[in-house]
Amino acid sequence: MKILVPATSANLGPGFDCLGLSLKFFNEVIIEKAPFTSISINGEGSENIFLKKNNAFVRIFNEIYENLSSKKENFRFIFQNNIPLSRGLGSSSSVIVGAIAAGFYMSGFKAEKERILNEALKYENHPDNIAPATLGGFVCSMVENGKVFSIKKELDEALRAVIVIPNIAMNTEQSRGALTLNVSLKDCIFNLSHSSFLTACFLEKKYELLRLASQDKLHEFKRMKALPELFEVQKFALENKALMSTLSGSGSSFFSLAFKDEAKYLSIKMAQKFPAFRVECVEFDNEGFKIC
Amino acid sequence: MKILVPATSANLGPGFDCLGLSLKFFNEVIIEKAPFTSISINGEGSENIFLKKNNAFVRIFNEIYENLSSKKENFRFIFQNNIPLSRGLGSSSSVIVGAIAAGFYMSGFKAEKERILNEALKYENHPDNIAPATLGGFVCSMVENGKVFSIKKELDEALRAVIVIPNIAMNTEQSRGALTLNVSLKDCIFNLSHSSFLTACFLEKKYELLRLASQDKLHEFKRMKALPELFEVQKFALENKALMSTLSGSGSSFFSLAFKDEAKYLSIKMAQKFPAFRVECVEFDNEGFKIC
Repeated sequence: MKILVPATSANLGPGFDCLGLSLKFFNEVIIEKAPFTSISINGEGSENIFLKKNNAFVRIFNEIYENLSSKKENFRFIFQNNIPLSRGLGSSSSVIVGAIAAGFYMSGFKAEKERILNEALKYENHPDNIAPATLGGFVCSMVENGKVFSIKKELDEALRAVIVIPNIAMNTEQSRGALTLNVSLKDCIFNLSHSSFLTACFLEKKYELLRLASQDKLHEFKRMKALPELFEVQKFALENKALMSTLSGSGSSFFSLAFKDEAKYLSIKMAQKFPAFRVECVEFDNEGFKIC
Repeated sequence: MKILVPATSANLGPGFDCLGLSLKFFNEVIIEKAPFTSISINGEGSENIFLKKNNAFVRIFNEIYENLSSKKENFRFIFQNNIPLSRGLGSSSSVIVGAIAAGFYMSGFKAEKERILNEALKYENHPDNIAPATLGGFVCSMVENGKVFSIKKELDEALRAVIVIPNIAMNTEQSRGALTLNVSLKDCIFNLSHSSFLTACFLEKKYELLRLASQDKLHEFKRMKALPELFEVQKFALENKALMSTLSGSGSSFFSLAFKDEAKYLSIKMAQKFPAFRVECVEFDNEGFKIC
């Protein structure tokens, strides 16, 4: 079997641990029964010995497979890792969702989206990346008693993402540690009104209001201070026809959204302006993981 | 002229200062040019001398009228006040929106919704009641530089509100004072995800998810403690087919939403169960203020 799992961008400014969307670039994994376990990694992480010795995908896949089929077997795993690691583009979610869905499929079960998503929550306790990685599109999620509830909306073909990927990794756990445990009621109301409004903008296609709605008071500023060039990235994007521009997940990547033609132009200008960063103009994905 | 302004229910659980909707029961005001100013009040507040001496509607109307027409004139005001005072049903917003819209109309200007709403924000600094009182329907709002931005969705004809109105008033300012100035990041994330999800439920008509989405961690519990019977009201509503049941604004009224037939039945059962409280089964309004 072969499974493709998309990169995702979460938070989208104010929607901390709640909002996310799915990008059309994928990690691919081929899995085949084999006389002994073997792992081959191409792309991101291929030079990292640790990822071969203690591979999260393989560990989760084996857990699921053994649980569902009640037997232990050997597989050959061939990874084509396209999603950069620790850059806020959902590489961990892609591993978790992919391993679970593949585990279901290989043990003869249907990889039913809702079930995969709820399994994934056991491995990553916030739904903002795993939900779009599973479902595709723009997704608003909440968690209740260990279960994810999601409302998905397909993203317009007229829109593109411009992703700026710094060469510096950010660790989600460390990045979360930088946040205070208390926030002012004022900032809380700011984020809840903006996150609700941003949700309404995506659902009702009010793209002209995305810029105002995508403002955040909870986490972006603190996280961006670790890499101050990101303030310039955001400013430049908003000055050059981006509809919105926010930190992707906990960073270090930056996510901007624009109409197709403007996005192409923006990505070229961004690449010139920030030569140290990788810049990609990417379509949105509306499907989530795919098994071929 | 005659102006009708609807009652509103704000917050809807998690959507503090952000979400609100409009109910089909109205305050009515007739305004006519007259040789001297006179005020007659029927219904709510008719026995309150203070409301005649220092009437907020008249004060705001005169301010707007004098501003726009650059002249001072006398009017006869006949109020039919149907919205209970200080019960969390938007009586102040109704006064503000009505006085401004009437002021525009009487001085020869078009009472254009967006302009009225932005004027109203000068008198009430949170948009969750004034926005649905102006626009009707379900409304998600945010404020930026003294301007309200709103996205409105018409409410289904199949839905009804069941309003429980205690005989005890609650003062919004006092009620706000009971809230702490800081909240935990955890509660903040809870509310922002639920408010966003609740917005998506209304926009995408996912009514079966309203119950989970309408939970709050910021204000309801603290406010309801002032009138503990409200916990029973909420529990009873949710056990009797309400799709959601939340404190209306800062209280003391309680707002429940249900499908038409269930709402009728629920309101009868509520009236039996809580004989000390007034119970109304009300249609939703999708228009906002109306000038006849």
